Amino acid sequence: MAHARSEPDTLSALLRHIAARSAVTRATLAQQTQLAPSTVSQRVEVLLAAGLIVEDGTAPSRGGRRALQLRLNPDAGLILTADLGATRAMLAVSDLNGQRLTRTIADVTINQEPQQILGWVDQRFGALLAEAGRDAGQVRAITIGVPGPVEFSTGTVVVPPLMRQWDGFPVPAYFEDRYPAQIFVDNDVNLMALGEHQQHYPEVKHLLFVKIGTGIGCGIIIDGRPHRGVKGSAGDIGHIRLPDSDAQCWCSNSGCLEAVAGGRALAERLQKEHGCTVTNARDVTRLAAEGDQRVVAEVRIAARHVGIVLAALVSFANPEIIIIGGSLAQLDETLLAGIRAVVYERALPLATRSLHIETSTLGEEAGTIGAISLAQEQILSPSGVTKLLGTHLRPPRLP
Amino acid sequence: MAHARSEPDTLSALLRHIAARSAVTRATLAQQTQLAPSTVSQRVEVLLAAGLIVEDGTAPSRGGRRALQLRLNPDAGLILTADLGATRAMLAVSDLNGQRLTRTIADVTINQEPQQILGWVDQRFGALLAEAGRDAGQVRAITIGVPGPVEFSTGTVVVPPLMRQWDGFPVPAYFEDRYPAQIFVDNDVNLMALGEHQQHYPEVKHLLFVKIGTGIGCGIIIDGRPHRGVKGSAGDIGHIRLPDSDAQCWCSNSGCLEAVAGGRALAERLQKEHGCTVTNARDVTRLAAEGDQRVVAEVRIAARHVGIVLAALVSFANPEIIIIGGSLAQLDETLLAGIRAVVYERALPLATRSLHIETSTLGEEAGTIGAISLAQEQILSPSGVTKLLGTHLRPPRLP
Repeated sequence: MAHARSEPDTLSALLRHIAARSAVTRATLAQQTQLAPSTVSQRVEVLLAAGLIVEDGTAPSRGGRRALQLRLNPDAGLILTADLGATRAMLAVSDLNGQRLTRTIADVTINQEPQQILGWVDQRFGALLAEAGRDAGQVRAITIGVPGPVEFSTGTVVVPPLMRQWDGFPVPAYFEDRYPAQIFVDNDVNLMALGEHQQHYPEVKHLLFVKIGTGIGCGIIIDGRPHRGVKGSAGDIGHIRLPDSDAQCWCSNSGCLEAVAGGRALAERLQKEHGCTVTNARDVTRLAAEGDQRVVAEVRIAARHVGIVLAALVSFANPEIIIIGGSLAQLDETLLAGIRAVVYERALPLATRSLHIETSTLGEEAGTIGAISLAQEQILSPSGVTKLLGTHLRPPRLP
Repeated sequence: MAHARSEPDTLSALLRHIAARSAVTRATLAQQTQLAPSTVSQRVEVLLAAGLIVEDGTAPSRGGRRALQLRLNPDAGLILTADLGATRAMLAVSDLNGQRLTRTIADVTINQEPQQILGWVDQRFGALLAEAGRDAGQVRAITIGVPGPVEFSTGTVVVPPLMRQWDGFPVPAYFEDRYPAQIFVDNDVNLMALGEHQQHYPEVKHLLFVKIGTGIGCGIIIDGRPHRGVKGSAGDIGHIRLPDSDAQCWCSNSGCLEAVAGGRALAERLQKEHGCTVTNARDVTRLAAEGDQRVVAEVRIAARHVGIVLAALVSFANPEIIIIGGSLAQLDETLLAGIRAVVYERALPLATRSLHIETSTLGEEAGTIGAISLAQEQILSPSGVTKLLGTHLRPPRLP
């Protein structure tokens, strides 16, 4: 049900207009939002008083005067992001404009007590803040990406196959007392999908991001927004069963896509059946890139199976673009070509007519870009702005 | 990007509030939309002058006076709907409130020249209008449902496997000169999904409606809205390939879900392999319901294959509810039980934890209810209201 605009709606709309452009005048804002110029002026004062925006420079105006330009105030606060994968993590500090101030990459083993991992994250956040010459009091938003299903509304990890000790753990509670910030938790592949969408395909409405690394997962953008499903498990395609396989999966089922085509399964098979010296997805990628024919052959089989599942998803969801990411995605010719061949052969002609299947060009950065983008989107939303402005907001009009 | 409200936005919001309730006062509207009371009064006058709403009766008011109640004016216009399936059609005349005035059901063979079918539809519309004592000049919206993919924005049928002569045919153009109406065209299964959603599950965000009749298709509701995909082919799951089948499909591929589990395929197999006297999906349903063991056995196999595909879609989309419709859906114990067994066994536990799989209770009505609901939703949208009001709208404010 559509509603007319409340105070937070209006402020949110203005902030988003200001954030989307490098600079904008009050007159342009009024024109673009169709709000009365007096309303715009009044609300802009609220945002200026709260320090969320600044005015600087001058813009050409129709009259002789030069109009002042409004910008998001990069110093109004900081965004912390931790993109936690199964074995790697990227942590970063950014300003409200999404400009990264500093970052770090490290190896992690996610399958530990959440307190242990989050304690480490918090410690690294502290070090990064110190490095950037900022402090915890300036943090306005935190995004944590995890390699498992998340109930987005509460930031709770739910029945994660990869990080079982996190089941039911409410991540925001861990950071609440440490930072004056809004805290968002999402699945790592959802963040990668958001990152690709925001960076390269903002105009695309329906996009799938398929990560093929240790495991296999899919981030879904429908109608320009992340689709997480009713329990946050949407996109969990790694355990879709391939009817013509009975490969044993570590999840205890058999015939899962991940058990045939995931980096972990590939490495295990190459070790056992071919005696290759590989321990993880990155080793598989390296050997295939070096031209090891045993590895290339296994990757080809993997590509075929990923293609079978994606063909079904293309018929179902009719997306405009599929981005292949994760460490194995670097194997363009072997992996991407194999996936494409099967999808174009098997999915409906109408659904593949304008379908693009591409390799991610953001690499390890995708999740962090998505995490920053999610934080911006959320804190500029009406409810985010309400929290951000706090006492600067007028009390709501009485009925 | 969010925008503040323009004139059509405001009018659309008010109309939707009025339509969603049986009656509402100006004061309640102001409260619910958070618009200024003066704005509400002014816009209500526009809607009254245009005859879209009426005021009648009195409601208890806080003061001594009794406030006038506003309602959508059922006499402001008519909605025509034609839900065209592969072999059956339901046509109806309704008022703007969605109240059906009259309807008819008939057998059709959709695979003919579109002009021929639409000529027949137009003739029936005329007869129904006469029956209701109304005329073509009162029609404000028309929804046509067809059993094939539709580019929703233009109402063009695109590469339909079942009705090849319709490829590229712009349906709205056929009716444009005949009625002063906005014309919407959608896939028939999308309309069934909308109908179930609107009638029984308005609070459910993510819903799949799977029609198992002559063919197999899926209507998708994501975030409370229909998901049609980039080319309008979303939900076309009938031709997802089952890797463990090589059944020849009439679409010229092999191993399609529809070739194993669709009513047409079932009927053909029962004829050829068992010598049963069946010609279509309804015959199959009848014989299975009568307990013919050859038919029941085939339906069980069909259920298993539908379940395999749905398990994958549940892992991918994480819906809250799946509704099984179409003529075979009446076979609750055989079909529904079989589908459920496979989905709960194969899909991710987190995704099935709160998943419901039910049989449609709307039967043949689902598509028509969805078609009426689509028409209402569209004509009460900002762009629909703009067209509906025409000259009653104020000219847009100059920049």
